[in-house]
Amino acid sequence: MNEIYAGIEAGGTKWICANGCGPGEIYAQKHLHSAQPGETIPAVITFFREQIQVFGQIEAIGIGCFGPLDLDIKSGTYGFLTTTIKPGWANTDVVGPFRQAFQVPVGFDTDPNAAALGEATWGVARGQNDFVYLTIGTGIGGGGMVNGRLIHGLIHPEMGHICIPHDLEADPFSGICPFHGDCLEGLACGPALEARWGQPPQSLPPDHPAWQLEANYLALGLVNFILMMAPRQIILGGGVMRQGQLYPLVRMKVLELLRGYLPLLQMFEDLADYIVPPALGEEAGVLGAIALARLAAHDHPPGSTQD
Amino acid sequence: MNEIYAGIEAGGTKWICANGCGPGEIYAQKHLHSAQPGETIPAVITFFREQIQVFGQIEAIGIGCFGPLDLDIKSGTYGFLTTTIKPGWANTDVVGPFRQAFQVPVGFDTDPNAAALGEATWGVARGQNDFVYLTIGTGIGGGGMVNGRLIHGLIHPEMGHICIPHDLEADPFSGICPFHGDCLEGLACGPALEARWGQPPQSLPPDHPAWQLEANYLALGLVNFILMMAPRQIILGGGVMRQGQLYPLVRMKVLELLRGYLPLLQMFEDLADYIVPPALGEEAGVLGAIALARLAAHDHPPGSTQD
Repeated sequence: MNEIYAGIEAGGTKWICANGCGPGEIYAQKHLHSAQPGETIPAVITFFREQIQVFGQIEAIGIGCFGPLDLDIKSGTYGFLTTTIKPGWANTDVVGPFRQAFQVPVGFDTDPNAAALGEATWGVARGQNDFVYLTIGTGIGGGGMVNGRLIHGLIHPEMGHICIPHDLEADPFSGICPFHGDCLEGLACGPALEARWGQPPQSLPPDHPAWQLEANYLALGLVNFILMMAPRQIILGGGVMRQGQLYPLVRMKVLELLRGYLPLLQMFEDLADYIVPPALGEEAGVLGAIALARLAAHDHPPGSTQD
Repeated sequence: MNEIYAGIEAGGTKWICANGCGPGEIYAQKHLHSAQPGETIPAVITFFREQIQVFGQIEAIGIGCFGPLDLDIKSGTYGFLTTTIKPGWANTDVVGPFRQAFQVPVGFDTDPNAAALGEATWGVARGQNDFVYLTIGTGIGGGGMVNGRLIHGLIHPEMGHICIPHDLEADPFSGICPFHGDCLEGLACGPALEARWGQPPQSLPPDHPAWQLEANYLALGLVNFILMMAPRQIILGGGVMRQGQLYPLVRMKVLELLRGYLPLLQMFEDLADYIVPPALGEEAGVLGAIALARLAAHDHPPGSTQD
């Protein structure tokens, strides 16, 4: 019988909880509004307690969480959300209550690193040791692997906040990042699109100039990731990327911006196999959290198992 | 008795060759002008043959080379310089002639990755698993480690070419990168300073506005590296960084640009222990090449040995 894990995609607006083993083997799932920590976290604990009654004990818990997070296991505040601007959530102990309630290993990482791990375990990045996962939605978050392991260092990547060129004549919009104004997230996340064009992005027609501009900003970000880390693949997910027309536009802009500098990329011709959508779709986040749980339980690298 | 290695810092203008074991144990060193491959490479081979006569057999060779390079060991052109604009050097087999001449393992990587490995083995990055090494000279090159191993992927990092904001009103200089114009290298390498200010950088006084502008561009680059990979340390080397006044200026700009976004960085107060000069000084490059040779001979990670 397969081992059962608890996966939590802890987002800024909602938490998705799932009990199961992996793709196609989710036994129960629940969406919760991320109200206040004192409300949301106990509700999630209650959900998993109920699941354990029905399906049996869980091996581990995985939490892919919005950030910034303290991921330094030597830190006294390991497992905490740190300086988030989401009211009520700054300096919240996320890992502690789950560890205490269930007495099992708890894997904890950023939501994009969790999604990246999910894609490396079951999705489009199987077998990749060096790749970037970028999610473009209410914010822009990034994660991925270098040398076969999730990218960590002093803290964790915050790829959405990189500085990119911003031509104020072509786009006088000043950006919406509360920290940096016109960083990548400030210019290209979903709410930035809505603020710039005065309507929700999904209501903009596919040939609207918004998408060319969006592709340009995303490409500037990707070019920087390519030059910094030489990923073997870039996965673009998140709500904004449901606009499928963005993929070919982004690929074209990336090739334009590199201007033949990296000839190996030309192996990929139009980059159709290089800049790709996630394979796990809407469940990428919570499956990523389950992948984190598996890793916490066994510490085995993704791709090394038979499932 | 210590094992002897051959280290080659293969730069765009000169090649530095050293025979030895590590810092303080360089038995012989030679500088060669990098004329044409058919001239330079045989001269280097002759030098090491002479050294072997005197000091005995070498265990391995390490080459830290200007790029772009083919580092894919499965490629038919592994060990080649690829699309360099340096006349005569494009598509040159660098590794092959040395492997053939000496029949020993040859470690091969970019010059900044070699220098990074040197610093991780004997220098300021000992014990660091996640750090960036940036060299600012005739070009800007970057390397480093993530998860305790040198950063590689599809190819190798080309950090100097990342896109950064360029305020054309404050700095109308259009940049000198032949590929991208005003990428980081195009705006901030030594020749860019010289072209912008009409005099060699070393002749500009320490309070010249050139250094504020230079610090600003370097900080934009570093902020992107921090947000992408969360390094635990950033080493800044190369000729331009001999202007010691740049270090505090860069640190201040980095803090300004992050605007409190990454509170863990504040552990470092003024970043004096975070953004640092290399410890191996002028010999960083060739010692890095010797570190590559050691790694090629034993494949042991830096820092795990007793020397």
